[in-house]
Amino acid sequence: MKERSLELSVLYDFYGALLTDKQRAIFSMYYNEDLSLSEIAENEGITRQGVRDALLRASKTLDETEEKLGLFRRYGSLDRKLGALEDIAGKMRAVNREKFLSPEIDDLVRELLGTIRDLREEI
Amino acid sequence: MKERSLELSVLYDFYGALLTDKQRAIFSMYYNEDLSLSEIAENEGITRQGVRDALLRASKTLDETEEKLGLFRRYGSLDRKLGALEDIAGKMRAVNREKFLSPEIDDLVRELLGTIRDLREEI
Repeated sequence: MKERSLELSVLYDFYGALLTDKQRAIFSMYYNEDLSLSEIAENEGITRQGVRDALLRASKTLDETEEKLGLFRRYGSLDRKLGALEDIAGKMRAVNREKFLSPEIDDLVRELLGTIRDLREEI
Repeated sequence: MKERSLELSVLYDFYGALLTDKQRAIFSMYYNEDLSLSEIAENEGITRQGVRDALLRASKTLDETEEKLGLFRRYGSLDRKLGALEDIAGKMRAVNREKFLSPEIDDLVRELLGTIRDLREEI
């Protein structure tokens, strides 16, 4: 159950913008702020069943969109490849420091790592 | 007008999976196979106005999804950053060939470029 909550929170980060304002508000209270169904029902002036329905509809949209667009699946693969780039950059730095002591190569490695970091923030 | 067609084709690559089967078929005949409204109407057994409506609805979904998720906007930025990584790798190769002739660094540069190419295919 905890795992499912985590999965939904991640999908919400990718696709939350596709939900209605109301679904977004309820989803966020339940999964991010950890409010109970009753608390949310009171906040929104609807029944607990209404809250439950909104959460189910929101989850369905998130699941279906992932099935169609697969951003979350792709994210894992991109993230691993960025990790591979960082490893290669690290090896270059090590080879250079051990054998050539070139400030030029050291600077290029630094530039490389900075750009990889920027990419990581954008994916 | 041509520019708008190109824009819609790109958005279709990102979000086409969110359209209905019917919208996808009509969109693809019109924008990819370059069939006329009349030809599509005949193929689908609907009126030309029906084809026009389906195209408008599909375009609206594509535009609205881009507005909400912005994958196309992000793609441009990721693509530029991958280009920057390639430039840095190219400079490393040049510095190495000019000054150190290290096969180890040359191999690492090759590995770097291969991984960047893989990433480019996935974004």
